[in-house]
Amino acid sequence: MSFRLNKWGVMAEIDVLGIGNAIVDIIATCDDALLNELNLRKGNMQLVSSEDADRLYESMGPAVESSGGSAANTCAGIGAFGGKTSFIGVLNDDQFGRIFAHDLKAIGVDFNTPFNAGTTPTARCLVFVTPDGERTMNTYLGACVELGIEDISEDQVKSAKVTYLEGYLFDPPRAKEAFYKAAEIANAAGNKVALSLSDAFCVERHRDDFFPFIKQHVDILFANEEEIKALYQTEDFATAADRVRRDVELAALTQGPKGSMVVEGAVTMAAPSMPVEKLVDTTGAGDLYAAGFLYGYTQGKSMEICGSLGALAASEVISHIGARPKENLADLAKKSGLIGGA
Amino acid sequence: MSFRLNKWGVMAEIDVLGIGNAIVDIIATCDDALLNELNLRKGNMQLVSSEDADRLYESMGPAVESSGGSAANTCAGIGAFGGKTSFIGVLNDDQFGRIFAHDLKAIGVDFNTPFNAGTTPTARCLVFVTPDGERTMNTYLGACVELGIEDISEDQVKSAKVTYLEGYLFDPPRAKEAFYKAAEIANAAGNKVALSLSDAFCVERHRDDFFPFIKQHVDILFANEEEIKALYQTEDFATAADRVRRDVELAALTQGPKGSMVVEGAVTMAAPSMPVEKLVDTTGAGDLYAAGFLYGYTQGKSMEICGSLGALAASEVISHIGARPKENLADLAKKSGLIGGA
Repeated sequence: MSFRLNKWGVMAEIDVLGIGNAIVDIIATCDDALLNELNLRKGNMQLVSSEDADRLYESMGPAVESSGGSAANTCAGIGAFGGKTSFIGVLNDDQFGRIFAHDLKAIGVDFNTPFNAGTTPTARCLVFVTPDGERTMNTYLGACVELGIEDISEDQVKSAKVTYLEGYLFDPPRAKEAFYKAAEIANAAGNKVALSLSDAFCVERHRDDFFPFIKQHVDILFANEEEIKALYQTEDFATAADRVRRDVELAALTQGPKGSMVVEGAVTMAAPSMPVEKLVDTTGAGDLYAAGFLYGYTQGKSMEICGSLGALAASEVISHIGARPKENLADLAKKSGLIGGA
Repeated sequence: MSFRLNKWGVMAEIDVLGIGNAIVDIIATCDDALLNELNLRKGNMQLVSSEDADRLYESMGPAVESSGGSAANTCAGIGAFGGKTSFIGVLNDDQFGRIFAHDLKAIGVDFNTPFNAGTTPTARCLVFVTPDGERTMNTYLGACVELGIEDISEDQVKSAKVTYLEGYLFDPPRAKEAFYKAAEIANAAGNKVALSLSDAFCVERHRDDFFPFIKQHVDILFANEEEIKALYQTEDFATAADRVRRDVELAALTQGPKGSMVVEGAVTMAAPSMPVEKLVDTTGAGDLYAAGFLYGYTQGKSMEICGSLGALAASEVISHIGARPKENLADLAKKSGLIGGA
């Protein structure tokens, strides 16, 4: 096993440890009329029961399946950049569980969380993609609700430069404890804790939990415009950006095609987005931005390069159906001159 | 229920009834070196045990899942043209079985075969796609081996203008009986029996079974260049085309980018292929050619139009990953002037 000294003086063998919901996406295109008919709030992620998932599935067109899950997508992206990354998430030993585990390992992510003991199936997310590329998600959490503190390995958290948590983990009840345990270990070890706010409605659901967690434990915050505005209950992005500056060491705020804003202490840096030939499916855009950013961050790159690596990874993933990169992101980054070795 | 008088004077309510293996494809890109390392014969379909499938899967890159199966792909294509079509095939009541059933119904295919009784899982096919777009397939037949004569409904076969069988069905032992039963019912009802030769190695495996079946029962034969040459054990395509003229009423012989040759009695008609912007994945090319051709055929179109509809559907499916159409084929056919109503 190779150990590398990270920039915080800690012996780290993992760049990023992701903890999140382990989900298989079921993805179909549809028109806006179907969203209205099914009462789905466009761009939102909503939690659904197994029965509701079945009912929605009946109305869905022909689909394809692809491994997903927010933090898992980020880990997959870091793997595709060549970073060292591990993931913790709970699956059932069913067909979806086996494809999720396969896809993560095949892209270079270390993954060893045991399958759950019972028959609760692996989580699935019904993703409706409209012609504008926007995705509307309906998640049945299944086995994910079983994630608990027993799944968090102290050694693994200690050995990770960054422990990355998805805000969606505030939904399954026991996961929040796991979340706190991981953050406390990481903080005590002098490692970094990163959090993605995940979804504006997720922020609404859990604002009272998010605030103390962010202030006490989070070093790096990822959010899009809607999420950061929801967190600080303001309609003004600049106000939200100024507020977050006081609460975390580093925040990367994405604004879709307008690019991203990186806020670090008194410094604010804008990174442009990267143009895509055709926007096909925004699923995973934020997750892959975080992948590029954290890959750069754990390699000691400048904030400019981190933001650009985020934009690069996001632009790849929105150019096709599915939330996992199809291209070798390390090659793309070399070609565009963001990292050496082209 | 609406009944339409077909051109053979039979009251038909289904254009095409497909009978085939019900398979979920697990698709990943790879380079040629991996095929060599795994001893996979490029472009071939080989049958594998569950254990071999697991072993190959370990060597496979991150994948996506999409419903497949040769005759099922053809039915899906006919559904995407707006034709009336049904499918018979055996699944397990597992996650793959449920996505296969969903995808077929969602694209407009009538499908009612009950799930198998036991625990044998739904079939899966590991599809390796190389940079040239060629696909190499490894199929674990699973629940498909349970297809038997009890799954063939006499009423359904009688009500179908064309009963379409995939040659791959000669692999699972009991399916051959089902095959014969369906063909005999269709023949007796004055309906048409169509067969796809599926794969040159499938022809090699079953040539002695194929010959009497084709001569006695088949009206319409689909084959690519390699398959028809394998059937007649000749290296010369023209020789094979002349032989097939004597054995079946109608043959549609595909030649990849060179287009197809339709042979009907003394008449031979060449249909060009349709250009694709980028060849991504040839999986399903032959299945979708058959879909376009049979859709035209059952609508009473000329052989030229049938061949062009086949080329249109094949060009759509090879332009993306997966063997099912992503576009509305009826719209594409109207836009290109092949059918009315644009």
